[in-house]
Amino acid sequence: MTVAIVGAGPGDPKLITVRGLELVERCDVLVYDRLVSPQLVARATTATRIPRETLTQSEVNELLVHHGRKGRAVVRLKGGDPFVFGRGGEEVEALTAAGVAHEIVPGVSTLTAVPALAGIPLTHRGTAAQVTVLTGTSGDGADLDYVRLAATPGTLVVFMGLGRLAWIADNLILNGRPFTEPAAVVSRASLPDTRVVVGTLGTIAGLAADLPSPSLVIVGEVARLAWRVRELAQEVGRRG
Amino acid sequence: MTVAIVGAGPGDPKLITVRGLELVERCDVLVYDRLVSPQLVARATTATRIPRETLTQSEVNELLVHHGRKGRAVVRLKGGDPFVFGRGGEEVEALTAAGVAHEIVPGVSTLTAVPALAGIPLTHRGTAAQVTVLTGTSGDGADLDYVRLAATPGTLVVFMGLGRLAWIADNLILNGRPFTEPAAVVSRASLPDTRVVVGTLGTIAGLAADLPSPSLVIVGEVARLAWRVRELAQEVGRRG
Repeated sequence: MTVAIVGAGPGDPKLITVRGLELVERCDVLVYDRLVSPQLVARATTATRIPRETLTQSEVNELLVHHGRKGRAVVRLKGGDPFVFGRGGEEVEALTAAGVAHEIVPGVSTLTAVPALAGIPLTHRGTAAQVTVLTGTSGDGADLDYVRLAATPGTLVVFMGLGRLAWIADNLILNGRPFTEPAAVVSRASLPDTRVVVGTLGTIAGLAADLPSPSLVIVGEVARLAWRVRELAQEVGRRG
Repeated sequence: MTVAIVGAGPGDPKLITVRGLELVERCDVLVYDRLVSPQLVARATTATRIPRETLTQSEVNELLVHHGRKGRAVVRLKGGDPFVFGRGGEEVEALTAAGVAHEIVPGVSTLTAVPALAGIPLTHRGTAAQVTVLTGTSGDGADLDYVRLAATPGTLVVFMGLGRLAWIADNLILNGRPFTEPAAVVSRASLPDTRVVVGTLGTIAGLAADLPSPSLVIVGEVARLAWRVRELAQEVGRRG
């Protein structure tokens, strides 16, 4: 194995996996996302560290293939999990096509960690038996099917939805979801400045307007169950 | 903090988080799920180790509250992530009601890790822009709405669906999903004996009949993209 695609987790540097940290500490080349904790980047003491934001996706692919072919230990460190609305799949395809050996180290995904940290279960007996996950802008650039989404039972989770939250909420309401349906936005979960805002489809865009990224939008009755929201700030404060 | 609800990840003991392992190594009492790696349980060298399978859910809740009240460092170690079709929420409610301080340490969820390790992206540009997640038996015991599920675009992911796979596939087909739609089952992902079976809605129940748990069922065009399936066995073999 020369190239490892590693998920860094939702933000707190201690939420990387043991295997992921082991690879970061030993690597020769580290290519890291903007949202990865600087404390994690600093653990790659022996590596050339390359911020991803200065590169296009195809430059990232070329860089991984280039160093991988030379037999260097390369870590591609990505926020959250590399395969949930990330582009880990494209990097794996490039490595596979070039015949470069690689390892995938999954991370704690925003999708599952953020609701947990905010005390919002995605499913809950008697409240929500299924979850639908989507992005604020869909993968292929086409608009989502709001008629069907509004009719979908259970919880909706929206990645990268904060910028278009008013538009998403309006379309769900126009297609039949109640104005009063609970909705929550969790901003910067697992980080010291995390914030959770709970409202309804009618109010959430206004309430969450000033929250910083990254964030996750959760729509559905489970948002009402955010029983731990008040405790969250204290708890994060207690973590070492 | 006295009680920590910790996700152990999908199986490989190195896929626990750094924070999770730190708590396991220091704890006084460890209550662990059947599917948690014995190597992880063995790291709790100073702890009284209690297997969860001998207890009812309310006994687990009582145990956590009891030891938490005495100020002991308690770790409740759960497979995958504690809040994705787990019952972490119920344990947190019990601790909150009893006034016992607690910490949530999210884990690498089966939901995101398993498809990644099998080379199946849950979303993919131009193929699937949304994901619907459900259990083989829905949370409240009622049957799922197969008319709506069959009409839902994107990828379907089914937890604990292997036992009822023929029934689930038949109902999706009866309600309009094509017999030829790709479907995959990933069994024991991240473990040395992992297996991935790819077929169609019409064939998958037969193909996957003998696979051991835990497993995840993935239905949709993305299952066709399992470009890494053949490499998986080798790669897992290479991991330390």
